[in-house]
Amino acid sequence: MGFDPATLKYNDQGLIPAIAQDETGDVLMMAWMNAEAVTKTVESGRVTYWSRSRQAFWVKGETSGHTQALVEMRVDCDRDCLLLIVRQEGPACHTNRRSCFYTAVRDGKEVEILSPIRD
Amino acid sequence: MGFDPATLKYNDQGLIPAIAQDETGDVLMMAWMNAEAVTKTVESGRVTYWSRSRQAFWVKGETSGHTQALVEMRVDCDRDCLLLIVRQEGPACHTNRRSCFYTAVRDGKEVEILSPIRD
Repeated sequence: MGFDPATLKYNDQGLIPAIAQDETGDVLMMAWMNAEAVTKTVESGRVTYWSRSRQAFWVKGETSGHTQALVEMRVDCDRDCLLLIVRQEGPACHTNRRSCFYTAVRDGKEVEILSPIRD
Repeated sequence: MGFDPATLKYNDQGLIPAIAQDETGDVLMMAWMNAEAVTKTVESGRVTYWSRSRQAFWVKGETSGHTQALVEMRVDCDRDCLLLIVRQEGPACHTNRRSCFYTAVRDGKEVEILSPIRD
């Protein structure tokens, strides 16, 4: 079956959550796409989100150089969430950490489990 | 710092997305939690979502037996997404597949990459 981004289920703002996971299995971040961002991502091979704060396309790494090359896009059973397998250049997080999920909850406390990458 | 579910950022329906990943690295599913579901999950060690369709707590596997034991909860940099490391019993997906992300987009086509688990 041909893949048509219009057949995905978007929320009332026209957005679908997209989880980025690198090839080693680390979950790096979650952000949002609209149908056009899904199309751009598939066609260009460069992961392109929709920035809710800026209300604009967000080609990941365009300014920082920390790009995400799309290895494979996957769709979930309800067609309302995407999993992106990516090749991440440098840190995915704006805090300069490899992953945005650097805070773990352990014994009722928040613990930092990843340090910023030194340039 | 002590972990307080009230300090997370919820959407206008009071929900936060939660990604479940098993210990081998497979991303299994994404669902939603409200603050009380986060508390229940941490306190019970059994992953508990909020079902948007049923408007009720959804203790994963309560009826199917396909439970998710919480290994670790992680919070992202914006505090608006959770990553749950889980020990998944059987399939996570209601289609009886290990993961909900069983459809890959390859060469512009949708390809099924996971089969249902046979009982």
